[in-house]
This record gives sequence, C-alpha cells and structure tokens, in this order.
Amino acid sequence: MAEHIVSSYEDELKFIVRRISEMGGLAERMVEQAVTALTRSDAALAQSVVADDAILDAQQREIDERAIMTIAKRQPMAIDLREIVGAIRISNELERIGDLAKNIAKRVIAVHDHIQPAQLVRGIEHLSELSVEQVKDVLDAYAMRDPQRAAAIREGDEEIDAVYTSIFRELLTYMMEDPRNITACTHLLFSAKNLERIGDHATNIAETVYYIRTGSEIAEERPKGDTTASVTQSTVENAASGQAG
Amino acid sequence: MAEHIVSSYEDELKFIVRRISEMGGLAERMVEQAVTALTRSDAALAQSVVADDAILDAQQREIDERAIMTIAKRQPMAIDLREIVGAIRISNELERIGDLAKNIAKRVIAVHDHIQPAQLVRGIEHLSELSVEQVKDVLDAYAMRDPQRAAAIREGDEEIDAVYTSIFRELLTYMMEDPRNITACTHLLFSAKNLERIGDHATNIAETVYYIRTGSEIAEERPKGDTTASVTQSTVENAASGQAG
Repeated sequence: MAEHIVSSYEDELKFIVRRISEMGGLAERMVEQAVTALTRSDAALAQSVVADDAILDAQQREIDERAIMTIAKRQPMAIDLREIVGAIRISNELERIGDLAKNIAKRVIAVHDHIQPAQLVRGIEHLSELSVEQVKDVLDAYAMRDPQRAAAIREGDEEIDAVYTSIFRELLTYMMEDPRNITACTHLLFSAKNLERIGDHATNIAETVYYIRTGSEIAEERPKGDTTASVTQSTVENAASGQAG
Repeated sequence: MAEHIVSSYEDELKFIVRRISEMGGLAERMVEQAVTALTRSDAALAQSVVADDAILDAQQREIDERAIMTIAKRQPMAIDLREIVGAIRISNELERIGDLAKNIAKRVIAVHDHIQPAQLVRGIEHLSELSVEQVKDVLDAYAMRDPQRAAAIREGDEEIDAVYTSIFRELLTYMMEDPRNITACTHLLFSAKNLERIGDHATNIAETVYYIRTGSEIAEERPKGDTTASVTQSTVENAASGQAG
C-alpha cells in the first residue's frame, strides 16, 4: 500500500513536470514570435501570440490545481514537497513570461509605420535571443535536475542587462535626435524592458531549481540586474556625443 | 480530537491572514513613500523603500512556507483549501507590488535634477493614490471575506487605466517639446506604468478573494486594462496640438 502511494505520487509529479515542459515550449515560442511580429510589423502573428497567452494561463491554472491536490492527498515531505512547490513557482514564472510576450505583441500596431533602424532591430533581436536562451537553459536544468547548471544560469543575466542598458541608451538617443521617433521608441523601450524582465524570470526559475534539489538558496550574491534606473540625462548626452564624435 | 484539528487549522489560517494584513500595510506604505521620494527627490526615503522590499520578500517566503506546511499537515478541502491557496496567491501579489514600488524608488536619482511640471506631479500622485486605494480596498474585502465587494473593486481599475493613459500621453508631449526632458520623462513613464500595474495586482487579489469565497471565477468580462500599447505617434501629436490650440 505504501508503495502504491509512492508510485502514485511519482506519476502525479511526472505529469506536472511534463506539463511544465509544455508550458516552457509555448512561452519560448511566444517570446520569439512577439519579437518577430514587432520587427516585421506582422499584426497577424502578434494576434496569435495574444491568443496563445490564454492557453498558457489555462495550463498554469491546471498545474496549480494538480499540484495543490497532490500536496493535500499525498502529504509529501522534504524533497518531494519541494518538487511540488517548485512546480507551482516555475509555472507561475512561465505564465509571467507569457504575459510579457503578449505585451510586446500588443505594441506591434503602434510601432507599425515607424522605420526601425537596422542596428536597433538587431539589438532587440539579440536581446530576445539571449532571453529565450536563458529560458531554454533553465528548463533543461530543471529537466535534468541539475542545481549547478541552474546556479550557472544566473551569470547569463548579466549579459542581458548589459545589452538592455545599451538598447535603452540607444533608444533615448534616437528620441533626442528626432521627436517624431518618440512614440515608437517608447513602445520599443517597454518591449526591451519586457525582454530584460523575461531574463529575470529565468533567473527566478534557476533559483527554484536549485532550491528543489538542495533545500537551500543559492549562496552567491545575485547579479545586480537592470541598472538603467540610474541612467541620467547627462549620461545619455555624453554617450550620444561620444557616438557622434 | 477532530475539534482539536479543526481549531489548529483555524489558528494557522488566522496567523497567515494576520501576516498578509501586515504585508499589505507594508506594501501600501512602500508605494506611497516611493512616489513621495520621486516627486520630492528624496534619496534617503527612496533608500528606505529599497530596504523595506527585503522585509516584504522575507514575509512572503514565510507565508508560503507556513501555508504549504498547513496543506501538507491538515489536508484541508473545499473552502479551507481555497483559503490557504488564496493566501499563497495574495502574498505573491503583494510581493510583486513591493517590487514595483522598489523600482520606482530606484529611479529617484535619475529624475533628481529635472524640474517636474506641477501638472505632471499631480497626475502621478493621483495615479498613486488611486492604486494604493485599490490595494487598501481589496485587503479590506479580503479581511471581511466579502466577494461582492471584491468583484466591485475591478471597476476601479478602469479609472486607473484612464489616468495612466493621460499621463502617458502627457509625458510623450513633454518629450517632444524638449529633448532635454526625454531621460527624466522615460523614468517617470516607467514609474507611471508601475503604478498602473499595481492596480492590476489589486485586481488579481480581488479575483482571488472572490474565488476563495465562491469557488468560482468572477463572471463578468474583466475591464480592458492599459490601452497605451496602441497609442501611436499621430494620436499623441493630435492630442498635443489639441492642447496647444
């Protein structure tokens, strides 16, 4: 009887882990498609990202319910409990990644008629690739139950923050050069910020994977994250004149 | 013995609910202080908001752990289970509100030397008051276990979205008038967006309160939310010329 319960718990956990992998695949695709829609002004693709978000939300609610019922029925302890709690947290992070992709998709129309400089498009695509890569990597670390790999993923977030900061400054420079760029650049600014936040959610997932396996938090200091909050007018003007000179 | 278990479950739930009320009070104060720091360029106050966020995070982790242990130990069903799951969700929303307040506080230095037009400051203060009011109201609805009151709170989010949209356009207009406004206005734009998102989190809490009491989702369509994603250059220019004319 005890063995039957254990096996049942394992089955339920397997089901939940498989569902998280599906959610992860959908969330990654949404981010990629939202950025493609943005850079190619593809309104139909943007619309399909918005529609996908409802599917992702439903998947998250299902995982939530299954996980809670498993806790109530099986009373798992130690690592088994952390597995289930971890699953709830990870699906929550993936749902938030989907929200951010949807928000990018909703900006496609506003940016539509604006000519986007090639350098800027490349920057945003690069930021998107880095963020999606982080999400893929952390879901691999989750599938492989590899806490060291999860801990290493946090390092990748520094590169994302550096690329985001550079895009942030570049966008401000475009706005200063020509006021007609301001509205479109504002939407690109929010889109870039969303991609940077997707990287943060990957980091949160990495910390959860580590917690599941070890029962403790990752020891080292977390990288500083987005530093654009302290970018001032003079920083941007200096950077802009540096570019011009 | 059965009564003993019931009473213990009740005690644990009471403890968690009291903790959520404390978290709510701290989150509200953080939002208020972050906006005060922003409009008065008060770096010390901003610093204290950043420090408070660590306390809020610790409170959320504690509620999470207590709630999960209560589910595992007591195996609550139906409304009792929804109470505990609801507590986890609400503390998660409050933690996110704290993050947004911290993000506003971190922008204080960047906005510091910029003269903020009185109309804009009033707009942001108004948006902050509306958002904090939503958080207060929804925590009252949670404390009173009042699903109707919770459902009604969603309506307040429409006013927040309208005020945010108006500030969004106003900020874009300031940027177009004078490129030297762009950096500071960008930080104010992110701050206003954060306040709008705080309103969204209040709405999420309202939906959770409704779910706890009724076991079902609120029936009516959720208000549309932030509509600035579709604001285009011509919309802003028309609005700006309308103001000037």
